Amino acid sequence: MSEPQLPARQLQILLAERPIGRPGEQTFEAVHRPLEPPAEGEILVRVTYLSLDPAMRGWMDDRPSYLPPVALGAVMRGLAVGEVVRSRHDDFAPGDAVSGTFGWQEYAKVAGKDASKLPPGVGWQLALGPLGMVGMTAYFGLLAVGAPQAGDTVLVSGAAGAVGSLVGQIARIHGCRAVGIAGGADKCRYLEQTLGFDASIDYKSVDDLSSAVRAACPKGVDVYFDNVGGPVLDAALANIGRGARVVICGAISQYNATDGVQGPSNYLALLVQRARMEGFIVFDHAPRYGEAARAIAGWLEAGKIHYRYDVVEGLSKAPRALLKLFDGTNRGKLLVRVDPQAQ
Amino acid sequence: MSEPQLPARQLQILLAERPIGRPGEQTFEAVHRPLEPPAEGEILVRVTYLSLDPAMRGWMDDRPSYLPPVALGAVMRGLAVGEVVRSRHDDFAPGDAVSGTFGWQEYAKVAGKDASKLPPGVGWQLALGPLGMVGMTAYFGLLAVGAPQAGDTVLVSGAAGAVGSLVGQIARIHGCRAVGIAGGADKCRYLEQTLGFDASIDYKSVDDLSSAVRAACPKGVDVYFDNVGGPVLDAALANIGRGARVVICGAISQYNATDGVQGPSNYLALLVQRARMEGFIVFDHAPRYGEAARAIAGWLEAGKIHYRYDVVEGLSKAPRALLKLFDGTNRGKLLVRVDPQAQ
Repeated sequence: MSEPQLPARQLQILLAERPIGRPGEQTFEAVHRPLEPPAEGEILVRVTYLSLDPAMRGWMDDRPSYLPPVALGAVMRGLAVGEVVRSRHDDFAPGDAVSGTFGWQEYAKVAGKDASKLPPGVGWQLALGPLGMVGMTAYFGLLAVGAPQAGDTVLVSGAAGAVGSLVGQIARIHGCRAVGIAGGADKCRYLEQTLGFDASIDYKSVDDLSSAVRAACPKGVDVYFDNVGGPVLDAALANIGRGARVVICGAISQYNATDGVQGPSNYLALLVQRARMEGFIVFDHAPRYGEAARAIAGWLEAGKIHYRYDVVEGLSKAPRALLKLFDGTNRGKLLVRVDPQAQ
Repeated sequence: MSEPQLPARQLQILLAERPIGRPGEQTFEAVHRPLEPPAEGEILVRVTYLSLDPAMRGWMDDRPSYLPPVALGAVMRGLAVGEVVRSRHDDFAPGDAVSGTFGWQEYAKVAGKDASKLPPGVGWQLALGPLGMVGMTAYFGLLAVGAPQAGDTVLVSGAAGAVGSLVGQIARIHGCRAVGIAGGADKCRYLEQTLGFDASIDYKSVDDLSSAVRAACPKGVDVYFDNVGGPVLDAALANIGRGARVVICGAISQYNATDGVQGPSNYLALLVQRARMEGFIVFDHAPRYGEAARAIAGWLEAGKIHYRYDVVEGLSKAPRALLKLFDGTNRGKLLVRVDPQAQ
């Protein structure tokens, strides 16, 4: 394959400050820098799509976590997919489609070990959606941590989101009753009419969320998959059943809190109901990604899983687009099309 | 055995109100009522000792829980031991030593199925201490829920208390490093010098509890056994290690809260550390009480477990004595000697 011409410079978006609360315009800095050739063992990837995810907010803080903080002045971290355009690694050749933590930039120079080839036939969006980290997160968070049994009631928050929408559908595939919490009537319609959730709760329109959960989950909640934290987590805890599993996947309502995280004041329900609350990091399940991807691909092919994307055009839009996650205004998995030619 | 003479009337202490916050004098009502003879299938027990436990505070609230609330005007619920003085149940005879939920009264008329004979040689105090519910709570909470491995760091709050003191000692017997949090230098000396804890933290004397936990648990906390909740739980969560187990046994700092329970704002450590927080109710482990009692009795006999009691004289003192638990002024398992002749 002939090597494509490359531009002399590329757009990169750097982390310019550690935001207090909500990230703003000043949080990021766009720079145009020369493209560097890959060193021995490295590849150069033209990024096609960048994934925007709530976890990015945590990576901006200077706090020990499951990954080191993004350094100030460094390219902002992000999962992405792209095409190999230069290779100095035996396993890769120009034209290969790959995924990795390529960051907020048009071209990524990475070690070969830090890129994975996409399986044949898997498109860019799918590789950042149900067959990517959000798919793995839903699969292992629900099945390995939540351990649902057929007939269980599975409640999920952020249910119209990239992970939550998969959690509810996978729960139904496993014979569970799926109940979703989302913000807005349109999202709730989507949950029930398109995704097949058994019930939905519009947290923005109910007076008492705990009562609404009780009405939607009359036998109690067996598995609660939490993406949001805050009052929604408390409403779920108030309704857990005996031996329930509360899966802590994220807490998007709390990531921009400036006066401390709101802890779940109903946590003593764990005692009364002999229940557990457990967190997880999807990377720990990497040895089983193949199993999960095969299962999800099968469900997609069988029409058992629906999925949608919210695609923002152009890397320069990423800083503003990220805020959609915190405002809940995205409709589907939030992606940035970095390469305007990418399908 | 000849039946002892019985008084015509007995002292009972009733729940007179549902306390808001801390129980007060007006929470209870002392009455003198005629002794009733047991009906067919029942026994009459002369209570020797009554156990005072933090869980009693929860039983006073009109809220669904693992046991129904104590009804207003009913005898206050409590675990106790005593001697059978009249029996109309084939399994019991006068003179039998029994335990059960006999309540805050001098004589209890209960169904035979609601009483258990004490094993031979087990004295009253022991039966409400390490060989009673507090022993079972420490044993199953630590071993079945906390699942410590040899070499683990086990941190326990309320460490000088009836349950916590056992948790630390059982942890050491299982090859763990035991660290206790307690209030006051004398309790900390007791933990280290008498009970053999590896380290102790006086939460009342440290500026920053989280830093103190970090210093005492340099490899991170593998099992945290929580009896207190509130800021102590948060300090522990800030220091849990990978895959830690946080055992929720109680939350004495929160039981009298009038402005809502303080939820653990550091709960997202569960996510970062892939850890779990789990509650339990000791009654669920009843089928294995025998195993636990044999193990604990063996450790007591071998001198591997020390235990102390704080005995209050006279049932009429029970309402005021209960407050010692919330003030942390008891020194050992809090008991009321209801029968002044009891050893």
